[in-house]
Amino acid sequence: MGRRPGAAQGARHQLTRARLPLPFPHDSKRTSIMSQREPIEIIDTTVNSGTSMSPFTWQQKYALAHKGLDHKVITGGFTTIKERSGGRTDHNPCIRDGDNWVFESLRGGDFVVADYLDQTYPELPALFQGQIHHNSVKFCDTWMWLAIVRPWFECFILDYHDACLPEDRAYVRQAREQVQLGGKTMEEVQAGREDRLPGVSVALEPLREVLSGQRWLGGDAPDFADYAPLSIFLWAASLVGTPPLAENDPLRDWIERGFDLFGGLGRHPGLKPLFGLERREGDPPLFIGG
Amino acid sequence: MGRRPGAAQGARHQLTRARLPLPFPHDSKRTSIMSQREPIEIIDTTVNSGTSMSPFTWQQKYALAHKGLDHKVITGGFTTIKERSGGRTDHNPCIRDGDNWVFESLRGGDFVVADYLDQTYPELPALFQGQIHHNSVKFCDTWMWLAIVRPWFECFILDYHDACLPEDRAYVRQAREQVQLGGKTMEEVQAGREDRLPGVSVALEPLREVLSGQRWLGGDAPDFADYAPLSIFLWAASLVGTPPLAENDPLRDWIERGFDLFGGLGRHPGLKPLFGLERREGDPPLFIGG
Repeated sequence: MGRRPGAAQGARHQLTRARLPLPFPHDSKRTSIMSQREPIEIIDTTVNSGTSMSPFTWQQKYALAHKGLDHKVITGGFTTIKERSGGRTDHNPCIRDGDNWVFESLRGGDFVVADYLDQTYPELPALFQGQIHHNSVKFCDTWMWLAIVRPWFECFILDYHDACLPEDRAYVRQAREQVQLGGKTMEEVQAGREDRLPGVSVALEPLREVLSGQRWLGGDAPDFADYAPLSIFLWAASLVGTPPLAENDPLRDWIERGFDLFGGLGRHPGLKPLFGLERREGDPPLFIGG
Repeated sequence: MGRRPGAAQGARHQLTRARLPLPFPHDSKRTSIMSQREPIEIIDTTVNSGTSMSPFTWQQKYALAHKGLDHKVITGGFTTIKERSGGRTDHNPCIRDGDNWVFESLRGGDFVVADYLDQTYPELPALFQGQIHHNSVKFCDTWMWLAIVRPWFECFILDYHDACLPEDRAYVRQAREQVQLGGKTMEEVQAGREDRLPGVSVALEPLREVLSGQRWLGGDAPDFADYAPLSIFLWAASLVGTPPLAENDPLRDWIERGFDLFGGLGRHPGLKPLFGLERREGDPPLFIGG
């Protein structure tokens, strides 16, 4: 497949922070090219149950579905990304769009692939509704990584290890313990999570508050404002050994509807239950009013 | 001053949640009325230093300045709001616009007065740039109340009491200890704050992240996306007995510029320093990279 004119190079996307002048320029030549195009490849980060783990990969799946772009998933775990990307990256989640390799930055709020797709395919449904919307989604995602992903990471780090493909586990243990856990073992870090999970649950209140007044974070219809946080819940569902949210969490309706989108994109049988956390004597409420 | 046609009644605004159809309808008859109008009154919540305390009151000051509306401040503390509002409310911050009394709801993210002003004066500069922007500001504010205001309240509750007007202190102690502190004393709740302040500081990271890429939360120019969180920092500055943020906090530039807006609206001499928190041995970084 030939290189499409105007499509940015993977190397640039790997380095560029997600600050794009929106709306994106329209290129009317794309439509005819698209009808002949090969499916975009998602280089997956698969776990032992067969489902995706990386929230970035989940974001990519939603983004491609939203834009209606054909794609196929190249399965495999963390330690084979290098091989599956032809040596282009060691561990960054990525897509291949013809000759373009687009790599995520591994930072919350960067949305490299989503920005690439809106910029490259402006004639297809937009993931972002302009710069204000982009800022707002970035803010929400940055908050989610700090207030939710980080503490959940410490509550589920051993589950995370155990969920990985057998060939990934030694790498995951070494890399996480040495870099992210400051030399502590996964067992030490995960211990006592039952005391911490209620606080993470209640910290989700800003999402509950906004969703109490509208059907989707994107408004009447879902867009990347929904896909970014839904991908974090799908990351959690790929690995949790115990549910982090209450059965009757007010977020449940939106999460279930989000997993049902695009013919049940988030309904992989390998996913684990998110709902079922029980409030113990002395715990704070799991959500405000709960 | 007579009742202006089409202006909503205070009672309605006290009950209505902030979900408005934006953009607001334009009423071309207003301009001529405005030239004859009396200044809007802000029923202040003043503390002993002479500055405002309530974040809602600070929001109102910014909102009126942004719209260029003449206003005057009716000073006084918590326990005289009833008298200063003609018996209309016991404690809710409010404004009086001619015959309209507009009361805040005391919930983060509701923005009752800001919505009233955009709806009533659509020909003046908008506080919100449409529904997506409104949702985004609401999300940020809901997060701030949960992740920042609540823990700071517990770190500064005795300072808060001591900052109040002498005639307010008995009420404030009783109301806060019985309702918000579950029967604990202010002294008990504030104790140990030095162990908690670093965690609140780092929780502000989503604001730092977004402001690393743009001058204001509103984009190139400030709007209510900035005024809502700036008002929370001004609330803190009205009462803190020890600074909650590091001298070199990356938020400092935006906060200082925000306090300088409108001829130094946030530069009241009674305000206390926000910057000067020092990281102790064993503390987490006060901000990412800090």
